[in-house]
Amino acid sequence: MNLSTTGGDHLPADDSFQLHMQKLPVKDSSVLETLYGLGNGHMGIRASNPLQGSQSNQDGQPGMFVNGFFDLSEITYGENYPGFPQNAQAIAELPDPRYLIFEIDGERSDEVAFDVKSVDKNLDMKTGRLLEIFEVISPSNKTIRLTMQSFVSHDQPNLFVVTYSVSATNFDGAVTIIKQHRYTNRQIDNSNDVRADQQTGQLERTFIDNQTTAMLLTTRKSQLSLLIAFQPLDGLDQLKFSIMDELPSYGRTFDLTAGLNVQFGFVYSVGDPHPLMDMSLNRDRYAKEALDRTTSQTFRALYDASCRQLDAFWETSDVEVGGDATLARGIRFNLFNLYQSAGRDGLTSIPAKGLTGAGYGGHYFWDAEMFMLPFFTYTQPEIAKQLLTFRAATLPQAQQRARELNVQNGVLFPWRTINGEESSAYYPAGTAQVHINADIAYAVDTYVRVTADEDFLVKTGFNIILETARFWLSYGHFAQSGPHRGHFVIDDVTGPDEYTTMVNNNYYTNRMAKNNLIMAAKYAKLLKQQHQDLLERLGVDNAEINDFEYAADQMVLPFDRDRRVKMQDDSSMAKPFWPIDKTPNNQFPLLLHFHPMILYHYQVNKQADTVMSDFLFPADQSTDQLKRDFNYYEAITVHDSSLSRAIFGVLAHRLHLAGKAYGYFMDTALMDLTNSQGNTDAGVHAANMGGTWLSLIYGFGGLEQERGTLNFDPKLPDQWTNLTFKLKFKHRFLAVRVTQTSLTLTLLSGTDLSVFFRHQPQRLTLNQPLVISLIETT
Amino acid sequence: MNLSTTGGDHLPADDSFQLHMQKLPVKDSSVLETLYGLGNGHMGIRASNPLQGSQSNQDGQPGMFVNGFFDLSEITYGENYPGFPQNAQAIAELPDPRYLIFEIDGERSDEVAFDVKSVDKNLDMKTGRLLEIFEVISPSNKTIRLTMQSFVSHDQPNLFVVTYSVSATNFDGAVTIIKQHRYTNRQIDNSNDVRADQQTGQLERTFIDNQTTAMLLTTRKSQLSLLIAFQPLDGLDQLKFSIMDELPSYGRTFDLTAGLNVQFGFVYSVGDPHPLMDMSLNRDRYAKEALDRTTSQTFRALYDASCRQLDAFWETSDVEVGGDATLARGIRFNLFNLYQSAGRDGLTSIPAKGLTGAGYGGHYFWDAEMFMLPFFTYTQPEIAKQLLTFRAATLPQAQQRARELNVQNGVLFPWRTINGEESSAYYPAGTAQVHINADIAYAVDTYVRVTADEDFLVKTGFNIILETARFWLSYGHFAQSGPHRGHFVIDDVTGPDEYTTMVNNNYYTNRMAKNNLIMAAKYAKLLKQQHQDLLERLGVDNAEINDFEYAADQMVLPFDRDRRVKMQDDSSMAKPFWPIDKTPNNQFPLLLHFHPMILYHYQVNKQADTVMSDFLFPADQSTDQLKRDFNYYEAITVHDSSLSRAIFGVLAHRLHLAGKAYGYFMDTALMDLTNSQGNTDAGVHAANMGGTWLSLIYGFGGLEQERGTLNFDPKLPDQWTNLTFKLKFKHRFLAVRVTQTSLTLTLLSGTDLSVFFRHQPQRLTLNQPLVISLIETT
Repeated sequence: MNLSTTGGDHLPADDSFQLHMQKLPVKDSSVLETLYGLGNGHMGIRASNPLQGSQSNQDGQPGMFVNGFFDLSEITYGENYPGFPQNAQAIAELPDPRYLIFEIDGERSDEVAFDVKSVDKNLDMKTGRLLEIFEVISPSNKTIRLTMQSFVSHDQPNLFVVTYSVSATNFDGAVTIIKQHRYTNRQIDNSNDVRADQQTGQLERTFIDNQTTAMLLTTRKSQLSLLIAFQPLDGLDQLKFSIMDELPSYGRTFDLTAGLNVQFGFVYSVGDPHPLMDMSLNRDRYAKEALDRTTSQTFRALYDASCRQLDAFWETSDVEVGGDATLARGIRFNLFNLYQSAGRDGLTSIPAKGLTGAGYGGHYFWDAEMFMLPFFTYTQPEIAKQLLTFRAATLPQAQQRARELNVQNGVLFPWRTINGEESSAYYPAGTAQVHINADIAYAVDTYVRVTADEDFLVKTGFNIILETARFWLSYGHFAQSGPHRGHFVIDDVTGPDEYTTMVNNNYYTNRMAKNNLIMAAKYAKLLKQQHQDLLERLGVDNAEINDFEYAADQMVLPFDRDRRVKMQDDSSMAKPFWPIDKTPNNQFPLLLHFHPMILYHYQVNKQADTVMSDFLFPADQSTDQLKRDFNYYEAITVHDSSLSRAIFGVLAHRLHLAGKAYGYFMDTALMDLTNSQGNTDAGVHAANMGGTWLSLIYGFGGLEQERGTLNFDPKLPDQWTNLTFKLKFKHRFLAVRVTQTSLTLTLLSGTDLSVFFRHQPQRLTLNQPLVISLIETT
Repeated sequence: MNLSTTGGDHLPADDSFQLHMQKLPVKDSSVLETLYGLGNGHMGIRASNPLQGSQSNQDGQPGMFVNGFFDLSEITYGENYPGFPQNAQAIAELPDPRYLIFEIDGERSDEVAFDVKSVDKNLDMKTGRLLEIFEVISPSNKTIRLTMQSFVSHDQPNLFVVTYSVSATNFDGAVTIIKQHRYTNRQIDNSNDVRADQQTGQLERTFIDNQTTAMLLTTRKSQLSLLIAFQPLDGLDQLKFSIMDELPSYGRTFDLTAGLNVQFGFVYSVGDPHPLMDMSLNRDRYAKEALDRTTSQTFRALYDASCRQLDAFWETSDVEVGGDATLARGIRFNLFNLYQSAGRDGLTSIPAKGLTGAGYGGHYFWDAEMFMLPFFTYTQPEIAKQLLTFRAATLPQAQQRARELNVQNGVLFPWRTINGEESSAYYPAGTAQVHINADIAYAVDTYVRVTADEDFLVKTGFNIILETARFWLSYGHFAQSGPHRGHFVIDDVTGPDEYTTMVNNNYYTNRMAKNNLIMAAKYAKLLKQQHQDLLERLGVDNAEINDFEYAADQMVLPFDRDRRVKMQDDSSMAKPFWPIDKTPNNQFPLLLHFHPMILYHYQVNKQADTVMSDFLFPADQSTDQLKRDFNYYEAITVHDSSLSRAIFGVLAHRLHLAGKAYGYFMDTALMDLTNSQGNTDAGVHAANMGGTWLSLIYGFGGLEQERGTLNFDPKLPDQWTNLTFKLKFKHRFLAVRVTQTSLTLTLLSGTDLSVFFRHQPQRLTLNQPLVISLIETT
């Protein structure tokens, strides 16, 4: 097959944009399905066996996901207390658009098993095109070589395009090819992860008529609808439309004599989720739009348009590491997947597994704001804005949730959600993680400070910061007695570390709440100048601003005076240490092997918790303090969460523990490509991918916010020759290149910018590279 | 109808043994079903509409319960963590043996609705006989007067006896009467109490053959079997055996001309639960035993035998209050129900609702040991011994449970159970209430100290005390740092108050654990003299005894030095107070209206917690300390548990708050007869009934253990003329009579006994009443 006929001239030279299957350490087909998954924030498609359809009773988990398209199912509790969420949300698993049926010698691949071998896969991350070669063997031992090229459009987010090239390997004869979707509901997820133990809903599927391949998918309980249409691509061999097996289908019988190559392809239009009522009223219009998008399209035209968008992504968001090609590829894989996963319609966010799997129900967690958003804020601020707009759109649900918990002021964002309502069925490691409120506020503040997007602040951001701050005043209180008497305490919360829950004064939570309160007061004062009407509308007065400031000022931040270490919570340090060294490897993650009561009984951390505060607020502590905190918490952390290592890595870097920083980073950067957590088959670890970027830019790149601008203090691992990345900051576009000996800052667009290098002021002027030596002169 | 024909001469003179429906304040038929329920520790039968069978789709909840006969059902969790119990146990609801079918004018009461009015009910608690009069109205408006007499045998625990007397009121004609059991499974319990939200299992019912009315009931998942046989009573009109509606039945058509009275009756043999395998192997033998028990029996013979046993009960266990007949009746009702509820086969205990309802799944809680056992220990020690033997029999399950929680030494008794396995589906208010371990040990110690039953101590009791003590050493630890550094702390527990869970150093738990450890050491030393072999077999050495003593000595008992009040737990007192006064009445009980996170956030107690320790360990604190504790905790306690008021009442008495003590007591004593908790329809509050006895004897009676014997310091409420009760103590039998002016102690059997009156020694000699003036001389 001549690749150039379908767009091969976009192939880039740089090998580190190529994800060749042969070069990957993992061989498990379910993991590969995830790694080669394609997405564009609207939808995601796993790179599974194309003959497998949507059934899970075979190897692999073929499926498509549409961001925000979910069903509800009732949660059953042993004891069902007031305020417990009654509905679990779960992202819907949709028919696989890669699906194909072969018929050879009267045997159909959807009726009898055909053997399908994955011969090769390559994902070109520069262009977004996935090339796959399969060997398909019929029961009568006739072998077909099937080559697929596919991409999801980064230009038109509803479009998925796939071409198939078919040739006979060991026979001459007739092969019938059928494109249809005999959609079968997936089984209940039987994974052994307790947190995933929520049933996925079942979809109803109908074709809107017998004239077109436009199918309508409807969820049962959430009552959402989605239209999917597909038609043949122009400029290739054509399959014929007909009704087969009572389904609108495309099919044709080809005579494959040796060397003959049949090429055909399809364009899918995967619609947006609509409420069923809206869909019922406007079905014909939506169907026409969907079909129009798929009509008379060529691979080339669609591909070129998508590539242009992806080029723009890489232009601003690429990070290049020199000296380690495997790592460089791994980093690009992470950035590419972040981009593939992030919703950008203001109605969706980034699921914990991206759009590559149904793990964690496809829910959005704090991961989105605290681990993934910084990448977008600094390089794709438009997407960052959309992600925060999603949170703003769910403020009514968050307000309702606070009231359900009898919190009379402010909002409480859900710990896990798709539609803005809480979907956590175990509040100690769910709803009690109220820090998500402050996390979202923190992300808003970061976005505003990086983009200087005052319009967003006024229209959207301030309200989030305000309402989350109000929650703290209602949920926390001034202690009546005890060691914290008179100070502001926040009881009954769970910090990021889920191996201790429902504690009092979790350091991270309190520090973040303090920040939230300070920001609320700061922005309220700022907006008072020109937006007094806004403050009035939101009911903010000076007394409330004072309350914010006083509570922030009096916030308890527990500290162990003997050890001179920040305390994770009021009672954490009196507990015995979990015998990590004596715990067999197969007992990790601990949460899958030990009753919560026992886990909570020990000093053992699932992930970075108190040190996450050290990471976010570097000015809070001296290097000595950071060292004590780091050493203490590193010793009790088992990194059972994929969100942990990146934070420890950055802190190790700050402490000049080069070997350790590098080790943590390498574990982070290649987590999915090496399947090091052992569960990449269920989807990528999206937050960890964001953590990779944090490690690179905040860690080795040494980026910090300082006095309203940026401070740089980079230091590369010995193993690397250079680290190159770009940033958008306050309407400027900036290139940063770090080598072992120098830092080069280039202002690529925008007006002059003052920055700092190791806290010393520097001035950047358009297109005048500033080169700073990193060689210490003694 | 002449009552004397079926045993009327047992009618006692004392009206306060008679529970007349007309004199009760409650009219709700479901509540009356509970109040008139009959039981004998083996089985319990609700006094429901006898035409209703076992269906819940009509008014009322007819049904029979057999102690220890339960089914399992899978517990579904939103998030299912390791060590969570996977099976819920629920006491099985059995066919109602009171059930009767009438056929008049071709219409059958099991096919069309007959109107049934309860005209009168009287329970003679002295003899255990229930007399009921119903008016049964057919659809054709023919009225029958139905008089029922029934009792469960206190002589042969498997037997239930019922007679029916039928006469026509407004017609002459034929009436067909059928006795059969068209058993229908009950619906799922739809009560709105979250804690009851466990499905009841379904039974399979078969008749063992077509010749006899012996039916075999089998649970589906627990695989238990039970045989129930019934036959007509001798000496009355006879119904004829036949197969009707394909069921073995008794029936006959009577011509009821005016004034004619038909009398017939049945004796039921309700078997013991057997594993299905055992039943399968020995079914014919069990069936023969069951049928033999029911053959050729007369009401009179069975009734006389039962009365003799009940006479013996009242002889030792009666408590008489003079001056308030309603109260006197209420107290006897409570004592009678305790006796009706208590298992006495060493395989069962006392369900929270007795044997009068399926509430709380028919589970045994700490209620049995801490609220109900003292009554039995002091007046029916054989039953007390059997109840503790049940716990001993479940030590293997308790050991297994501790291991499931990764506690490597000792046992953990289940928070709620029937078969000895944990059935709690919400560990923060379930498994985390590890104080149950110390509660059971406390009850063993009390039993041994009261009965001087050394044989029980050696064979059974010590092992319980030892294994529970071992748990504390494993679950608690010596604090590494913080305010308790070096002291023994117990983290992550829930005390009796379920409105705060998973706290550190719950005062009650720690005090009870300390007691448990002290006892383990004490008894180990004691047994070393003569039972060294036992200690060796149980692996107790001096080092372990020292460990027990040291941990007990170093046990943290949190105390607020500013308020000079015992702290419920390490962090309780810094929390804000729940606005009890501002909470609408319809928001109680709070647990049914507020999310746990919020409840836990405030100082608000469901029930006596810290003051329960004051109650159990009077020597721990001065009167001033008790006063401070009482005032503090009374103000934050909402008594949402029926276990609360009795404790506060006793403490109020000790503080000479006579009005308050009397008020709490009256709320306690008449709780079910007045349906003051609003849910007596689901069964009696058995623990509260035990609480009544505690209030009377430990409160007004002023009984305490002191220096190996008893101390008395009684004081009656002004409203009463006398309080009279009996006690068994160290092989003596003792009568106590308190009036406003005197205390009279009479040793009815046994050797001389030294006791104390207000800590001054007194000597009791057989049959020589010791009269002590209670008039203070100044």
